[in-house]
Amino acid sequence: MHTLLKSNTKEVVIGADRPFVMIGEKLNPTGLKKLGQALVEQNFDYVKQLAKRQVDWGADALDVNVGHPGIDEVAMMPKVVEAVLSVVDVPLCIDSGDPAILEAGLRCAPGKPLVNSVNGEEKQLAAVLPIVRERGAAVIALTIGEEGIPETAEGRLAAAGKIIERAATLGIPAEDIIVDPLVLTVGHNSNAATVTLKTIELVRKEYGVNISVGASNVSFGLPDRPSINSAFLALVMQAGATCSITDPVKLGSTVRAADLLLGKDSNSMRFLKYFRATEKLREQEAAAKA
Amino acid sequence: MHTLLKSNTKEVVIGADRPFVMIGEKLNPTGLKKLGQALVEQNFDYVKQLAKRQVDWGADALDVNVGHPGIDEVAMMPKVVEAVLSVVDVPLCIDSGDPAILEAGLRCAPGKPLVNSVNGEEKQLAAVLPIVRERGAAVIALTIGEEGIPETAEGRLAAAGKIIERAATLGIPAEDIIVDPLVLTVGHNSNAATVTLKTIELVRKEYGVNISVGASNVSFGLPDRPSINSAFLALVMQAGATCSITDPVKLGSTVRAADLLLGKDSNSMRFLKYFRATEKLREQEAAAKA
Repeated sequence: MHTLLKSNTKEVVIGADRPFVMIGEKLNPTGLKKLGQALVEQNFDYVKQLAKRQVDWGADALDVNVGHPGIDEVAMMPKVVEAVLSVVDVPLCIDSGDPAILEAGLRCAPGKPLVNSVNGEEKQLAAVLPIVRERGAAVIALTIGEEGIPETAEGRLAAAGKIIERAATLGIPAEDIIVDPLVLTVGHNSNAATVTLKTIELVRKEYGVNISVGASNVSFGLPDRPSINSAFLALVMQAGATCSITDPVKLGSTVRAADLLLGKDSNSMRFLKYFRATEKLREQEAAAKA
Repeated sequence: MHTLLKSNTKEVVIGADRPFVMIGEKLNPTGLKKLGQALVEQNFDYVKQLAKRQVDWGADALDVNVGHPGIDEVAMMPKVVEAVLSVVDVPLCIDSGDPAILEAGLRCAPGKPLVNSVNGEEKQLAAVLPIVRERGAAVIALTIGEEGIPETAEGRLAAAGKIIERAATLGIPAEDIIVDPLVLTVGHNSNAATVTLKTIELVRKEYGVNISVGASNVSFGLPDRPSINSAFLALVMQAGATCSITDPVKLGSTVRAADLLLGKDSNSMRFLKYFRATEKLREQEAAAKA
């Protein structure tokens, strides 16, 4: 099953028979104070820089979130989208829990964007799915039910199924649903990652839809997070995840390596091309710093 | 199924329900010129240093190989084993293609050592398995048949099966066979890793034996080898590999991270302990260098 995303001129195909798709996560003021400050000041140079850098490092699409205290998010979203599109042409993922902000982003996003996200709560389903349907977008479905995040893989499969089935009744096809099986930190619960891996397998088997996994929550609160995040990304890719909202600068080489190892990179072409491009970027960034 | 290795005072248990076992690979002059030179000069300080460093960085056992031009390997093996045992007490893996050298190593290795390796060629089976049986050792079984390394996972499963069955007729139980499904470089063949992953699954399912994978061949000839090797180790661990002859300094944190993610590290205890220990080692080694 293929999920198609589009910008003005580019198409990104997400699917199990395709290389893994990276959706850049950095355009999000949560955890990036400097971006929040720039938005408050209506200074979009930093937005442009973050957008360009992520695409340079291999992001196939970009997540856009403008949630920050003191910002009119409905007014801000189109401005950030415009700034992003002034420097890169990739599909966008409009990221908000608020339907009005999603609508504001979807109105100005070109092509076929992605919505981040809907979950299985009735209120959310009723608010978000019609917007997705109206715009002809794809949507990330978080495996959360009325009672929160189910502890078991079976519970998360049920939450995913509820969203997929509800979407179908509105005319949103399964290929436009990307399930996020969620991962909590292994620092709090040693089975946090195995539940996610099992959910991926169950959802793939039952619905065949695409799967997105965030690869940094898993290591929250632990030291040496890069080792955990890299290993986790390789594990979810093998289990059947097909895309991730992630930091391409930190995890791009792991993604390219795992694609190569999983037989999705004939003659190592993508791996080698990525290595050469990022080697050059590393030099340029070091020179710019010095 | 558990494979038990022993030194004078320590036991190492290899099994699917246990943390992944690292067998240090550095005591091998192939690719380590300085060690070859030290052996030629009968200088064992470097041997001791390599042995101690690998155990400090998390090696549960140590591979010992003395193959080098200009060395009487039968005479050298006991000297290296003695040097190793003077600084660490971990099970040893005696590594040679020559039965006389294996016997020399097995005579002086304490407890229950591992033999590296036997393959499925009749000549090798006849030469090596009786030595393993006589010493009560465990043995690594390379999935190589009379025609070399089979291209398919099914062919490698057959080679593994031949060794396991032949060993059984001599009274060597399956738990003392650790199958190495072999991996060629993905630089030459894009399916090299997927064949290995599939072999692991087939061998685990058919025989339930332990699986050892070398995690550095896979990236031979490619740049950014650490990214490939780390991702590959995570993938083989998920597929069912239970140990690896590897470099603990380079891959120890990936092993601890993957164990944690695969639910084999309750409360992150091993991961945290390893992080703290290696953080200290890193500081000490940097200070010693400066």
